[in-house]
Amino acid sequence: MNEVINQLKSRKSVRVFEERMIEEEIKEEIINAAFEAPTAGAMMLYSIIDITDAYKKHELSILCDNQPFIEKAPMVMVFLADYQRWYDTFTYNNCQPRTPGTGDILLAASDALIAAQNTVVAAESLGLGSCYIGDIIEHCEEVRELLGLPEYTIPAAMLVYGYPSQSQKERKKPARFDKDYIVFENSYKHLEKEEHRAMYQRREEKAGHPQKDITETIQAFCQRKYMSEFCMEMNRSAEVYFKNFRK
Amino acid sequence: MNEVINQLKSRKSVRVFEERMIEEEIKEEIINAAFEAPTAGAMMLYSIIDITDAYKKHELSILCDNQPFIEKAPMVMVFLADYQRWYDTFTYNNCQPRTPGTGDILLAASDALIAAQNTVVAAESLGLGSCYIGDIIEHCEEVRELLGLPEYTIPAAMLVYGYPSQSQKERKKPARFDKDYIVFENSYKHLEKEEHRAMYQRREEKAGHPQKDITETIQAFCQRKYMSEFCMEMNRSAEVYFKNFRK
Repeated sequence: MNEVINQLKSRKSVRVFEERMIEEEIKEEIINAAFEAPTAGAMMLYSIIDITDAYKKHELSILCDNQPFIEKAPMVMVFLADYQRWYDTFTYNNCQPRTPGTGDILLAASDALIAAQNTVVAAESLGLGSCYIGDIIEHCEEVRELLGLPEYTIPAAMLVYGYPSQSQKERKKPARFDKDYIVFENSYKHLEKEEHRAMYQRREEKAGHPQKDITETIQAFCQRKYMSEFCMEMNRSAEVYFKNFRK
Repeated sequence: MNEVINQLKSRKSVRVFEERMIEEEIKEEIINAAFEAPTAGAMMLYSIIDITDAYKKHELSILCDNQPFIEKAPMVMVFLADYQRWYDTFTYNNCQPRTPGTGDILLAASDALIAAQNTVVAAESLGLGSCYIGDIIEHCEEVRELLGLPEYTIPAAMLVYGYPSQSQKERKKPARFDKDYIVFENSYKHLEKEEHRAMYQRREEKAGHPQKDITETIQAFCQRKYMSEFCMEMNRSAEVYFKNFRK
């Protein structure tokens, strides 16, 4: 195993940071790593908003399901799926472009995520932790207003970065499901009830808390992570973002 | 600059491969790197379909805008945004789940892309090239049938991997737009006509083909990459995939 793979393996999300600023040259390196990422047709279908303003950090921490650690992070970046820039380029150059569609913005979201993950890998190699904030998809109207987002953009990811606290360094990386349930050969495999049970049980064992009956755990998880208010809001908000691409 | 960042910088897409199989343990390492990626709520909202079947590779190479290099690649993987697995788990455990929404599948697509990019980084570190095939979003009906995709999944990315040919190793990495046009502080910046022009011109200079008037180049690019048939198909097909999440 080489050093790169070693680092991918040891990387885990960090939500508590040392009170230490990130040096300008380190920040540069991390952002530059985004640009080195693969991008569809070399189009760079994303923009990065570097949130340095304390008020905006605070607002984002509230809009993203009230998570105060967001505003405490020394570096916060929003990765936009951005078809606005190309639409404008095409318009300025008299190309008479159609408006961007669902496929276009999905491709742009891919570009944004791929670039974002490169910054995560680069940050890790420089001793910095990071955490994705999926909640940035919520509260479309407020986020648009706060960040001045034009109609052909969608916030695909938000990331916070910083030097990890000691307790975060020592935290165990969450266990993953076994490969058999995630990787299939040639065709999707619909898992049977018993396979779902085994998949979940196996993960809990690996995590060090084996359970005989996982039904209650799953029911509680479903309520918390899937039937909850933030999740409904995420779906509503995403729908509003996508509306612009369905004209 | 450290070794990880060095590798991110030197990585470029590879479309021509040596006729050399990928060793089983190397393949394992690459797939394992996906599992080590950050994932929303540790849910692993993705599945990976490892395409080993020659017929399916061939079909995919046609469905993905007729690109024969796809079927020549020794390793081909489709990364699905997958809410089917969790929907099934919730159903089997009597959670009475709602059906997944647009926000849910967008989050799942993020998970899939983040995992995919980890495999790209791991592959590079092991001497393997890779290339994303955005066209996997096209031809929803045929791809679904070919790969047996259930309703709450979307192919978020396809990747081909292999040992790069000598000419691919020597190929120059495509120039990127300058940071000023991609990274903004605190708010999105709508670029003016002249800024668009400068952005494009600057990139062409870096690429070694400076142009006085970029309008024609952009118009040709727009026709080829945005107004073309594959692009229309991508939008149509994405729309069909998303329909299931709007019930």
